[in-house]
Amino acid sequence: MKLARRLERLGTETAFSVANAAADWSARGNTVYPFHLGDIDLPMAPHIVEALNKAIADGHTGYCPGPGIPELRAALAEEIGSQRGMTIDPSSVVVTTGGKPVITKFLQAVMNPGEGVLYPNPGFPIYESQIDYFGGQALPYRYVPTDDGFAIDLEHLRSMITDTTTAIIYNDLQNPISAESTQEEREAIAQIAREHDLWVLSDEAYFEIRYEGTSSSIAALPGMAERTVILYTFSKKFAMTGSRLGCAVAPQAIAEVMSTMNTNDESCTNQYVQWAGIAALTGPQDHVHDMLATFQERRDLTCELVNSTPGMQVAVPHSTFYVFPDVTEAMERVGVTELSEFADLALHNTGVSFCTREHFGRLQEWDERKYIRLAYSGIDAEAISKGLGRLKEWIESH
Amino acid sequence: MKLARRLERLGTETAFSVANAAADWSARGNTVYPFHLGDIDLPMAPHIVEALNKAIADGHTGYCPGPGIPELRAALAEEIGSQRGMTIDPSSVVVTTGGKPVITKFLQAVMNPGEGVLYPNPGFPIYESQIDYFGGQALPYRYVPTDDGFAIDLEHLRSMITDTTTAIIYNDLQNPISAESTQEEREAIAQIAREHDLWVLSDEAYFEIRYEGTSSSIAALPGMAERTVILYTFSKKFAMTGSRLGCAVAPQAIAEVMSTMNTNDESCTNQYVQWAGIAALTGPQDHVHDMLATFQERRDLTCELVNSTPGMQVAVPHSTFYVFPDVTEAMERVGVTELSEFADLALHNTGVSFCTREHFGRLQEWDERKYIRLAYSGIDAEAISKGLGRLKEWIESH
Ligand SMILES: Cc1ncc(COP(=O)(O)O)c(C=O)c1O
Ligand SMILES: Cc1ncc(COP(=O)(O)O)c(C=O)c1O
Repeated sequence: MKLARRLERLGTETAFSVANAAADWSARGNTVYPFHLGDIDLPMAPHIVEALNKAIADGHTGYCPGPGIPELRAALAEEIGSQRGMTIDPSSVVVTTGGKPVITKFLQAVMNPGEGVLYPNPGFPIYESQIDYFGGQALPYRYVPTDDGFAIDLEHLRSMITDTTTAIIYNDLQNPISAESTQEEREAIAQIAREHDLWVLSDEAYFEIRYEGTSSSIAALPGMAERTVILYTFSKKFAMTGSRLGCAVAPQAIAEVMSTMNTNDESCTNQYVQWAGIAALTGPQDHVHDMLATFQERRDLTCELVNSTPGMQVAVPHSTFYVFPDVTEAMERVGVTELSEFADLALHNTGVSFCTREHFGRLQEWDERKYIRLAYSGIDAEAISKGLGRLKEWIESH
Repeated sequence: MKLARRLERLGTETAFSVANAAADWSARGNTVYPFHLGDIDLPMAPHIVEALNKAIADGHTGYCPGPGIPELRAALAEEIGSQRGMTIDPSSVVVTTGGKPVITKFLQAVMNPGEGVLYPNPGFPIYESQIDYFGGQALPYRYVPTDDGFAIDLEHLRSMITDTTTAIIYNDLQNPISAESTQEEREAIAQIAREHDLWVLSDEAYFEIRYEGTSSSIAALPGMAERTVILYTFSKKFAMTGSRLGCAVAPQAIAEVMSTMNTNDESCTNQYVQWAGIAALTGPQDHVHDMLATFQERRDLTCELVNSTPGMQVAVPHSTFYVFPDVTEAMERVGVTELSEFADLALHNTGVSFCTREHFGRLQEWDERKYIRLAYSGIDAEAISKGLGRLKEWIESH
């Protein structure tokens, strides 16, 4: 019996194979240093769990409105607006089961088959997968290394725009490369969107995961709120990845179709988790600060060890919980040309497990140098020291 | 700025307007008797909540595999298999955020644009909406009244099948009409599916919501497991509608693509809710029995009052928590021809709020008699008596 043809266009997150390889290696009695996870090894704050239980005790265990309970939509409008210097109406907020559903619902709402969507590559792999799946034309734009990290190659991005380009996906505070736009770059992207009448998906999953400076949203720039959908998530800021709670902040017409999509796809997001989300937003924030302090220590340690390893270098990023070192010379030293082989050898010689550039979108002709992604959200300082210490020794031994 | 054209084909559940009208009437100081809800006014069992908290305390708050945690998939395979006389491999089970996502994921997996899918009408409105949305041809099949309830018009169903028909959606224990197939009817549907090589979505949301007899699954019939996707949900059986937990049991190839869809759409279902689901399946079942006893009392009361109302009649259903009375003569008596007008007048004259046949798929040329749906899952016996008592008096007064 035949399956539908659209499935031929459905991609996935290939990073799961890295997790499987690591689990396998660990099951065979080896120590694994997990730098491959985008997950967090810290607990949810107790007051969030308390609010969840109170909601259950109060009988908030039934279906609720497709776009979310009004109380959470109001709290999100207030919090997201105040952090970005925007006034957001609660009717623009559509609650979703994590931030990820905003990607598929945004693309379904704005992109016709055949139309082009600009997306970062390397970038979160689901962008490319969902553009392909719904019949769009995936238009990868690229980053170039700078002294301070990475910058978007704006000229190249502009050169990809045609009459059928309908949207741009923009992930300031970027996974996997941890790049952050300067204000000029952010304004340039906004200018391009206005000029070419593009919809914008602003993926702000890491907006609050930062160690210096403050985050800004492209949605707050002039003429942008009406063309921008913000992806917001509780996953990272509140260590709630497994709770599946997030939202879109969208122009009215899109908010309405996203609500209807919710009604069609899953009815609503878990109701008592939504009540817990209100506590996360409005309750004490010391767990967030503690987590960021922990991450900052891990970041410093990770960057220090990476930069003391021969053939590996990275600029210290100010945000996200990833570093994306250039390992071109380290690979040459070890004598491998394939990133997957390098990752395999690293796992089996040192226990260090990581994703590589190849897990973040199709390779492009501009991929000359080699990069890996080290995530430090799911590994403590001691394991970071041991793991990257072993990696360094191994590379030095060649 | 333009939205995507596919949105023109996206339907919804229009029943929300009934809920809004009821909320409005209640806000203006009137008593409302809510027969419109598909929701349950009973709490989750304490041992399920306990398991949820234990999972959080044990740190099960992170991402988990797209198709669900292995422990829940195993428990579901065991439970669903044993209740249906089938052997189900855990790899066939894909956990979803409620039963509803199985509908959209099934259709995406098996239906190409232009291909026909048979679906019950009246029936759960999302079938029609999602067939339309993904560009399929929605082929409604009908039920005819019998002494004991309703039966599928098999001849009519057969007459709608063409070369491009690819699937049938089958909702034994049916919402809204509470029909249940005889074994002969179930076998006839299976025979049609085998003969025309159709995929089957067996929506078994109400499999355990029954008061006499036992339920059977079409998937257990010869040659059917390999072409059938079972929709299973915790929503009704465990009073967990707001928890959003369900699964598909699917042939291997479909289970795999559904897992990939999960990874693309929402990563996974809330992890600690999955652990709670294991407790629901394997823990004490007295809450389920108590709920069914409560529902049975409500069913009897509802049917008794309906059948003592002039111009309304219904056969006592053995399953689901809906009754679907024929109200043709009652409407004539009141002097209205439109179901929506009848519902409006009933709300404003008696406080009784209900959905009608019009909320369950597009009207068809065979819709001669008039039906309403009374759901008794969200209203207690006392309110049932009062509400339907007032409805009866109001109709008698004409
Ligand atoms: C860039 C980016 N966007 C979106 C998400 C989605 O996260 P979630 O669905 O858990 O909110 C992630 C998670 O890793 C991410 O890295
Ligand atoms: C026939 C039918 N199928 C599926 C569902 C989906 O329920 P849930 O998504 O809560 O599991 C419902 C809910 O009312 C239903 O009536």
